Amino acid sequence: MTRNLPVDAGRIGADIETLAAITEPGRPWTRRAFSPLFLEGRSYIERRMREAGLQTRIDAAGNLIGRRAGRISGKGTLMIGSHSDTVPDGGRFDGIAGLISALEVARALSDRGIELDHDLEIVDFLAEEVSIFGVSCIGSRGMTGQRPAEWLSRHAEGRTLAAGISEVGGNAEVAEGRSDIKGFLELHIEQGTVLEREGTNVGIVTAISGITRIEIIVEGRADHAGTTRMDARADALVAAAELVLDIRQAALSLSQSPRHFTATVGEFAIEPNAANVIPSRARLLVDARAEFREDMDIFCEFLNETTERAAEKWGVSISPPARISDVPATPCDGQVLSILEQSADASGISHRRMASGAGHDTMWMAKAAPAAMIFVPCKDGRSHCADEWADMDDIALGATVLFNAIQAMDKA
Amino acid sequence: MTRNLPVDAGRIGADIETLAAITEPGRPWTRRAFSPLFLEGRSYIERRMREAGLQTRIDAAGNLIGRRAGRISGKGTLMIGSHSDTVPDGGRFDGIAGLISALEVARALSDRGIELDHDLEIVDFLAEEVSIFGVSCIGSRGMTGQRPAEWLSRHAEGRTLAAGISEVGGNAEVAEGRSDIKGFLELHIEQGTVLEREGTNVGIVTAISGITRIEIIVEGRADHAGTTRMDARADALVAAAELVLDIRQAALSLSQSPRHFTATVGEFAIEPNAANVIPSRARLLVDARAEFREDMDIFCEFLNETTERAAEKWGVSISPPARISDVPATPCDGQVLSILEQSADASGISHRRMASGAGHDTMWMAKAAPAAMIFVPCKDGRSHCADEWADMDDIALGATVLFNAIQAMDKA
Repeated sequence: MTRNLPVDAGRIGADIETLAAITEPGRPWTRRAFSPLFLEGRSYIERRMREAGLQTRIDAAGNLIGRRAGRISGKGTLMIGSHSDTVPDGGRFDGIAGLISALEVARALSDRGIELDHDLEIVDFLAEEVSIFGVSCIGSRGMTGQRPAEWLSRHAEGRTLAAGISEVGGNAEVAEGRSDIKGFLELHIEQGTVLEREGTNVGIVTAISGITRIEIIVEGRADHAGTTRMDARADALVAAAELVLDIRQAALSLSQSPRHFTATVGEFAIEPNAANVIPSRARLLVDARAEFREDMDIFCEFLNETTERAAEKWGVSISPPARISDVPATPCDGQVLSILEQSADASGISHRRMASGAGHDTMWMAKAAPAAMIFVPCKDGRSHCADEWADMDDIALGATVLFNAIQAMDKA
Repeated sequence: MTRNLPVDAGRIGADIETLAAITEPGRPWTRRAFSPLFLEGRSYIERRMREAGLQTRIDAAGNLIGRRAGRISGKGTLMIGSHSDTVPDGGRFDGIAGLISALEVARALSDRGIELDHDLEIVDFLAEEVSIFGVSCIGSRGMTGQRPAEWLSRHAEGRTLAAGISEVGGNAEVAEGRSDIKGFLELHIEQGTVLEREGTNVGIVTAISGITRIEIIVEGRADHAGTTRMDARADALVAAAELVLDIRQAALSLSQSPRHFTATVGEFAIEPNAANVIPSRARLLVDARAEFREDMDIFCEFLNETTERAAEKWGVSISPPARISDVPATPCDGQVLSILEQSADASGISHRRMASGAGHDTMWMAKAAPAAMIFVPCKDGRSHCADEWADMDDIALGATVLFNAIQAMDKA
C-alpha cells in the first residue's frame, strides 16, 4: 500500500489486535455481549475514544457513544458505528473493523483539525450478534425505539435482559428514540467473496437483504428398514433430500442475476433417526435472503409447488411451507449511496454496488435516519469463525471512504 | 376360512390376545424383555405350556422351554420357537405369532395323540429385540454358545446383563451350548408386503439377509448462510442429500431381481444445525441388507465411487465409507426348506421362497442346527408399531405348515 491515505492503517490494526487479545482463553475469538470480557473490551474502546478527544457515555439502550461536538449547535448528529461483541468462536473483524474504522475517522478529522457542522458520534452498538438472551441488534433497536418491550423480561444466566442492560451501564426503563440523527454510516467486512474475487476495494451496500425463514415438515411412514421393499416405502428423508437439492437449484437460478439471493437449509433433522427404521419425519428450516421482495415471492411460490410435487412423487405428506419469520429487505438511502460512491472516487478507491446478505445494525438505523453501509473484502469470505481475516490496508481504504463521506454528508 | 386344519385358529387368537393385554398401559404394545410385564407374559405362556402337557423350565441362557419327551430316548431334540418380548410401542405379532404357533403345534400333536421319536421343545427365546442392554437375540445366542462374554457386564437400569439373566431365572455363569438340536423351525410375520400383495399363504425363508451398516461423514465448510454466494459453497447437507437419493436409486436397482436387497439411511444428522450457517458436516448411517454377498459387494463398491464423485462435485470431503458392522447372510437349511415346501403342498397351502430382510433367532439357531423359518402375511407390511396386524387364519395356515413339517423332520 503506497497510497497516502487520511487514515492510519497501523493505528486501526493496533486497535483490532488489542481487542482480539480480549477473548475467552482457548476459544478465540470470543467476546460475547454482557460478559466481563465484553466490558473489558468496551473499557479499552472508551479509553481510545477519550484519547481521540471524544466525550464518552453509555446511552439508555446500552450503547457506548463517543461524541465530538459540531460547530453549529442543534444541527443534528452524524453517526458512524458498528459493534464490538462477537459470536462464540467468532472472528476479530466482524463489527470490530467497522467500530475501529469509525474511531479512526474521528482521529483523522482531529489530526487534520477538521471541524464538522454536525455533532459526530462514534457508536459501539450493544449486542449486534444473537446474544445469550436469544435476540440481536439490541442496541441499535433500543436507540431508535424499535426494541420490543417484551424482550426486557427475557432471561439468561440468572438475570433479565433489563438487568443485563443495567450491567453494561444502560437503563431499560428509559425509552430511547433518537430523532437528531441526520445520517448513519457503517463499515463491515463483506462476509462473502464478491469483492475479493473481483479485486474491488469496497462494496457500496444498496440494501440489507430480507430474511425469511420457512419451515417444512415431511411426514412419511416408519417401516422396517430390512423388510420393506424399496418400491413400497414412504421415506421422509428421501423426499426431504430431494427438497434440499431443489431448494439449492432454485436459489442458484435466482442468484444468477446481480440481485442478491441465497437459500440455505441450515436446520435439518429426521425421526426416529434409528438405524433400522425408515425415517418417518423430516424437518427442514430454510433461511432465504432476498434483496428484492419479488425474488422472495417467486421462491416461496416455488417452495409451495415443489413440496406438493415431492409429496406426490414420494408418497409422503408435506404441510404447506410455513413462514416462521419474514423480514423484508431494508434499502439504504439513495443520496447517501451517491455520496459514498463519490467519496470512493475522490480517493481513487474502486467500488461496486451490492446487497448485504447478512443483517446489521444499519438495518435498524436506516428506519430512523438516512443510512448506508460499505463492505471491505475479507479472506475467502470466511466469517463467524476463528480464521476470519481482513487486511488492514483494505480496512483503511474503507475508512477513507467513511472519512470523505462524513464530510460530504456534513455539507449536504 | 373353511379349511379343516389340524391347528385351532381360535386358540391361537385367544393366546395372542391375552398376551397383548399384558402391555404398558397407554403404550400399546410394549412388553420389553427383563421388565415385570415380560415376566408376567412368560408366566402366562408357561401356564399354557403346562396345560398343553409340556414340561417347563428356564435354561441357563434365560429361555423359557416347554418340553415334550420323544419316544426314543437320546434321538435328539426338534425345536420350534420365537420370542415374546416386544420393542417399545411394538406390535402384538412380532415374535408372539411364532411362539404361540409353536405352542399350538404341540397342542395339535397332543389332540391327535401323535407321538414323535424326537423330543420336542417349544421355546420362548430371551430378548430377541434390542433390549435395554443394547443387544439382541440374547437367548438364542446364549443357548448355542454364541453370546459374547463381554455382554454379561453390560449395564442397564442399575444391573448387569448377567443379573438380568438371573432375574428371569437363568444363570449366566453356566455356559449353554446345545448339541442335541436336530432341527429348528420358526414362524414369523413377514414384516413386508410381498405375501399380502401376491396373495400367497406362506413364505419359505431361504436366508436371513446379511446386514451391513456403513457410516459416511461429509465435511463441508460452515459459511454464513446469508452472505455466501450459492456458487461458492461447500454445503455438507447438499452433498449428503444427493447421496441419500443415489443410495436409494442403487438399492432400488439391486432389488429389481427376485433377490432381496434394501438400503436405508436411517440415521442422518448435520452440524452445526443452525438456521443461518451453511452445514459443515453431515453423518449418514446406511443400513444395507442383502440375501447374496455379491450384491452387498456391488453396493459397497458403488458407495465408494459415488462418495468420491460427490466430494468432487460439491467441493466437500467425504471419508471412505466405513463398515461399522458387517454380518453376512445366514442361509437356511436346504433339506428343511424342501420339507417346508412339501408340508405346505400337503395341506394345499400356497408358498413362495423369499429371503428375510430382518434378523431373527433363526439366524443364530441355523449356526447350531438345520434350521429354517416361514413367514405369514401381515397387514400392509407394518411392524414394530401399534397397528402391526396379522389375521389369525393366516397364522393358522403357517402353524399347519409347522405341524406337518415337524412330523416330517421327525421321520427324516
